[in-house]
Amino acid sequence: MSNYLWLVIAAGALGVLYGLIQTASLMKASTGNDKMREIAAAIQEGASAYLRRQYMTIGMVGVVILIAAYFLIGPWAAIGFVIGAVLSGLAGFAGMLISVRANVRTAQAASESLSKGLDLAFRSGAITGMFVAGGALLGVAGYYAFLTEGMGFESTSRDVIDGLVALGFGASLISIFARLGGGIFTKGADVGGDMVGKVEAGIPEDDPRNAATIADNVGDNVGDCAGMAADLFETYAVTTVATMVLAAIFFRTQPYVETMMLLPLAICGVCIVTSIIGSFFVRLGKKQNIMGALYQGLIVTGVLSVGALYLVISQLLPDNAVVTPGGGDPITAMNLFWSGLVGLAVTAAIVVITEYYTGSNFRPVRSVANASVSGHGTNVIQGLAVSLEATALPALTIIVGIIASYQLAGLFGIAIATTTMLGVAGMIVALDAFGPVTDNAGGIAEMAGLPSEVRHSTDALDAVGNTTKAVTKGYAIGSAGLGALVLFAAYTSDLQYFSANAEMYPFFANMGSIAFDLTNPYVVVGLLFGGLLPFLFGGMSMMAVGRAAESVVAEVRRQFRENPGIMTYEVKPEYGRAVDILTKAAIREMIVPSLLPVLSPIVLFVAILFLSDKADAFAALGAMLMGVIVTGLFVAISMTSGGGAWDNAKKVIEEGFTDKNGVVHGKGSEAHKAAVTGDTVGDPYKDTSGPAVNPMIKITNIVALLLLAVLASGKIG
Amino acid sequence: MSNYLWLVIAAGALGVLYGLIQTASLMKASTGNDKMREIAAAIQEGASAYLRRQYMTIGMVGVVILIAAYFLIGPWAAIGFVIGAVLSGLAGFAGMLISVRANVRTAQAASESLSKGLDLAFRSGAITGMFVAGGALLGVAGYYAFLTEGMGFESTSRDVIDGLVALGFGASLISIFARLGGGIFTKGADVGGDMVGKVEAGIPEDDPRNAATIADNVGDNVGDCAGMAADLFETYAVTTVATMVLAAIFFRTQPYVETMMLLPLAICGVCIVTSIIGSFFVRLGKKQNIMGALYQGLIVTGVLSVGALYLVISQLLPDNAVVTPGGGDPITAMNLFWSGLVGLAVTAAIVVITEYYTGSNFRPVRSVANASVSGHGTNVIQGLAVSLEATALPALTIIVGIIASYQLAGLFGIAIATTTMLGVAGMIVALDAFGPVTDNAGGIAEMAGLPSEVRHSTDALDAVGNTTKAVTKGYAIGSAGLGALVLFAAYTSDLQYFSANAEMYPFFANMGSIAFDLTNPYVVVGLLFGGLLPFLFGGMSMMAVGRAAESVVAEVRRQFRENPGIMTYEVKPEYGRAVDILTKAAIREMIVPSLLPVLSPIVLFVAILFLSDKADAFAALGAMLMGVIVTGLFVAISMTSGGGAWDNAKKVIEEGFTDKNGVVHGKGSEAHKAAVTGDTVGDPYKDTSGPAVNPMIKITNIVALLLLAVLASGKIG
Repeated sequence: MSNYLWLVIAAGALGVLYGLIQTASLMKASTGNDKMREIAAAIQEGASAYLRRQYMTIGMVGVVILIAAYFLIGPWAAIGFVIGAVLSGLAGFAGMLISVRANVRTAQAASESLSKGLDLAFRSGAITGMFVAGGALLGVAGYYAFLTEGMGFESTSRDVIDGLVALGFGASLISIFARLGGGIFTKGADVGGDMVGKVEAGIPEDDPRNAATIADNVGDNVGDCAGMAADLFETYAVTTVATMVLAAIFFRTQPYVETMMLLPLAICGVCIVTSIIGSFFVRLGKKQNIMGALYQGLIVTGVLSVGALYLVISQLLPDNAVVTPGGGDPITAMNLFWSGLVGLAVTAAIVVITEYYTGSNFRPVRSVANASVSGHGTNVIQGLAVSLEATALPALTIIVGIIASYQLAGLFGIAIATTTMLGVAGMIVALDAFGPVTDNAGGIAEMAGLPSEVRHSTDALDAVGNTTKAVTKGYAIGSAGLGALVLFAAYTSDLQYFSANAEMYPFFANMGSIAFDLTNPYVVVGLLFGGLLPFLFGGMSMMAVGRAAESVVAEVRRQFRENPGIMTYEVKPEYGRAVDILTKAAIREMIVPSLLPVLSPIVLFVAILFLSDKADAFAALGAMLMGVIVTGLFVAISMTSGGGAWDNAKKVIEEGFTDKNGVVHGKGSEAHKAAVTGDTVGDPYKDTSGPAVNPMIKITNIVALLLLAVLASGKIG
Repeated sequence: MSNYLWLVIAAGALGVLYGLIQTASLMKASTGNDKMREIAAAIQEGASAYLRRQYMTIGMVGVVILIAAYFLIGPWAAIGFVIGAVLSGLAGFAGMLISVRANVRTAQAASESLSKGLDLAFRSGAITGMFVAGGALLGVAGYYAFLTEGMGFESTSRDVIDGLVALGFGASLISIFARLGGGIFTKGADVGGDMVGKVEAGIPEDDPRNAATIADNVGDNVGDCAGMAADLFETYAVTTVATMVLAAIFFRTQPYVETMMLLPLAICGVCIVTSIIGSFFVRLGKKQNIMGALYQGLIVTGVLSVGALYLVISQLLPDNAVVTPGGGDPITAMNLFWSGLVGLAVTAAIVVITEYYTGSNFRPVRSVANASVSGHGTNVIQGLAVSLEATALPALTIIVGIIASYQLAGLFGIAIATTTMLGVAGMIVALDAFGPVTDNAGGIAEMAGLPSEVRHSTDALDAVGNTTKAVTKGYAIGSAGLGALVLFAAYTSDLQYFSANAEMYPFFANMGSIAFDLTNPYVVVGLLFGGLLPFLFGGMSMMAVGRAAESVVAEVRRQFRENPGIMTYEVKPEYGRAVDILTKAAIREMIVPSLLPVLSPIVLFVAILFLSDKADAFAALGAMLMGVIVTGLFVAISMTSGGGAWDNAKKVIEEGFTDKNGVVHGKGSEAHKAAVTGDTVGDPYKDTSGPAVNPMIKITNIVALLLLAVLASGKIG
């Protein structure tokens, strides 16, 4: 068995190696002229400074939790927490380091041709993607190998399970801070910079006279790259861990339990290979269709993954083996294969649906552009309507995915579908991370005064980037929807196990049966309490962006006022001050909302324990996990798709939009002003609040699992 | 026992009688000058024409359902359906008839004094309130009396239960059409009229040159009055019916089952009396505090209701009786009393919380006003943030209400809390209905050229009306949150009963046990499917408003273009054309979204039945009922509170708003323009989509109950 485990670790290492080699080749690309290098250096400096301070702050929270994990659970959980946290942080840092180097090179490459620009930007995205997927797989499989092969623990022992869950928690904790802090930074800069620059001073976006310009570009790197990378790292790690935990519980008494725990790791391993191969197929054809080029790579990865999945399952479970989970029906190997295909199909469906709702050529974005013609209010109304409607098809996709994989292979089928879905994360991240790189490249081109064709190329890339960014977010939250059942199953199975072995875990003695039944009012209480978290979290994080933007507006206004030379290009604005102010604001604002999902499960559990009994407290806590996904799924999808639609509606008008009456509206028209309002509203929707809901859901779930581990450890309670 | 039932019917009749007497006195008030009468007549004509066509269209849907109810369930269900539908329609019509007469009289009274204006407007609201509560109680109690005393059916027989549930369905069906059709009409007129009038032509709101002005005022009457009245009628009837059904099921084998079924009716009966008394305490004090005057009436009603509740319970359950529901713990009479108090406390808390989030003097509205200073985008961002945040405290209130009433008296305690909460609906409707009347009065004052002080008085009343309108919606949706458990309990208990008596109900034979457990994936599927309905419904209805508004814009533009004399006051615009166009648009647009909640339960049930088995299909359907409430609660509260906050932020600026830097922003300032954008966005949020979620939730639940009745009837399946 362990041979396969080493192969998995090798696949993880391959992902990281691919990243390193491609980085070396990327670094050789031209960085353009001195002016470009100067601007890029300022962005690099700002991004590094921000991330250092962000991770220092997170580190302080992390140390407190580390100590708690050590004393409340044990050393292996503490070490797992550190591994998850450090690797998630590294994934974010790596994403940022690559993108701040790729941006200026992409600007230079785009000045040569669109194809070269796409090639460079996509390659930088693929580096981040493989670092994320490879690093996460290395972390999970490596720690699992260390605990089982190295320390000799049983695969199904509490030390291994708690260690892996704590690893997931470490990744989640970092990622919510990174998503939220980065999201507040980037949108504070974007919204604040636009308000004072475009609206008040009447200067274009990315104009070097705007003191917030560098901060805006820093934001793309720390939010859309570093934050996204940490988020996807977390999604990948938590899903893999949850499937392994479920396998350990379901097949505990079976001889093939280790094979089943290996299965999710092996699927992820082969999918890294297919993602790497697929990345070579992203090439701009003669039609210059950027989305087509990206799809080409994605389709190759998807098709190869089908074969790879079959290979893995037939190797690990040969001769049409049948496995039987505890208390469930037997599952054939072929049905596990089909479950994996369901995961790939869900991924494909979400990509297509998200492109429909956020792409420039379809009804939703065009309807928002059309509504802009009649004013700001109608633009926002139509955008909100699109954002609400955009939740229906993804939710139906997830529903169909749940039913199909459950009918094929029970709860474990759902887990395999989710794992396979996330297996191709490397490729999906590659599609996403190239967006902010091109956005930055456009900014650098503008500030360095490159010819307008360059900006035109980067804008074309950026418009596709808006869609692929929405795709990744839909994908992450969709996998959370599918994965919610896996995490919930891990929670209930854990609980059942502790309760059945109450002589070892005295806290769980004499609880009676726990009813997760909707007829139990504490279950409804849990659903409602969980349901309110995404709304409250969304409200808090949007307000945080508003405050951060206000501080930027005040600073830029001050600089314009005190230095009239800025407007006449005689004096350079103090870019660093804006970066500094935003850094402080983002870090201050990220703390409270991030702690909301960490503390809420504990508060609910203690409150219901106090008001009723242990069984009801556990039931309410479980229902809360489901409540947070039921509303979180819709809140997140509506925010990310709606925001993408608003952004591209603005781009559609900038390229010259012909309305129903045949009138053309372009840059500077009244319709454009209305579209800018929609874009501003969509900014925190799609880049701060919406995407942060995904790690928020995971944290709530993981904290609940850890709470069980703490109570089981007998150290409190 | 039947003596008490007659007393309840008498209380219902008293409510209606109060309405008739007050109407007679209201009609005596002065209708001002000829110009005012002329405008009021145009509004009356438009409103009547719209409602006639709306109810004709609904009637056609109703006839189809009536035939289905007759053949699939039986004659008593069909008659119940007709009673519910007709009374709900009458409640809406009555609300409209009063308000189109009260508006011009309020304008005249406000020209004499603020106090007289408030008195007249509030009295007209109280008339609608008592018609709604009295009519609903008369309908439910009267049909119950007819079936039991008249036809001699057992209280707990299927004929009685199905008849009452069908009555609730009739009320719900009318109310969703009325809410949605009226909501699309009123906001199509409002948004369209503002866009073309305020923004394009630069003329003030309610300017007689705007062809949409009369339509806008018609909208207040058919949406905010008629739609709201039908909605609250539905909420009142469905909750009372659900509590009675639950009592019939829980206490089926007990000698006091009829007493327990009477209890909700009796509570509603005494609360009508306390509401009537409270209405006389609404008087403007020396401080001219409008909200204070309204609170005075509400507080009197609340305090008297505490005593009345005690009286009812000690009369019906004397000597500290103890009742025991099937399979539950014994409940003392005092605990039922305390449960009722929980309902009143929830009402009070929701009123206070909603006032905080939508009132002009508190942080949320002022923060939106402040955000308007930096532009359209930040206004909308802050408004959305407030709307998201505004869901948390009401949800916590409902959670606390569920826990408290459940701990006091189990599920039946929750039912009693909900019933008592709705008992005071007459008073709450009175607080709400006065808002649109003053809005209309302001419009008439403007168009008739009354002195600006009159408009100032009606504006002050209208600002409070924005808050009380949000309060009613929060109250209706809050009661739905609390009532969801009651409806869900009715569903599961019904199911249990059919399944236990499968020899009489063969469809339910050999189903095995139904697991509403969250570990059952079909339950999760149901939760997600239910969860998507409020989002999809919200998206569809907002788009409908957008389309209706566009048709208004096109018509007003055409009139301005073809009749240049309109702008110079030489030619009167053709108001009737705008009303006509909106009538068609609203009726066309209301059909599909209204049928969504009617058909969804059936589609889900059939789909899961096809894919799995009966037990899973019933489980998924049950979970869907919970899913629709979990997301619907948050969607509805966020929309109604957010919309109220935007509206009042605009009003705050119009009165002269001093921002953080000491700059004053007033009418016509840039901040005001941004605030108008927010108000426009909030319009369909708070007056179309948000409030229609409440009947949508109820319909989904009631359709599920009726589906059980159909399957039990053995006529299909």
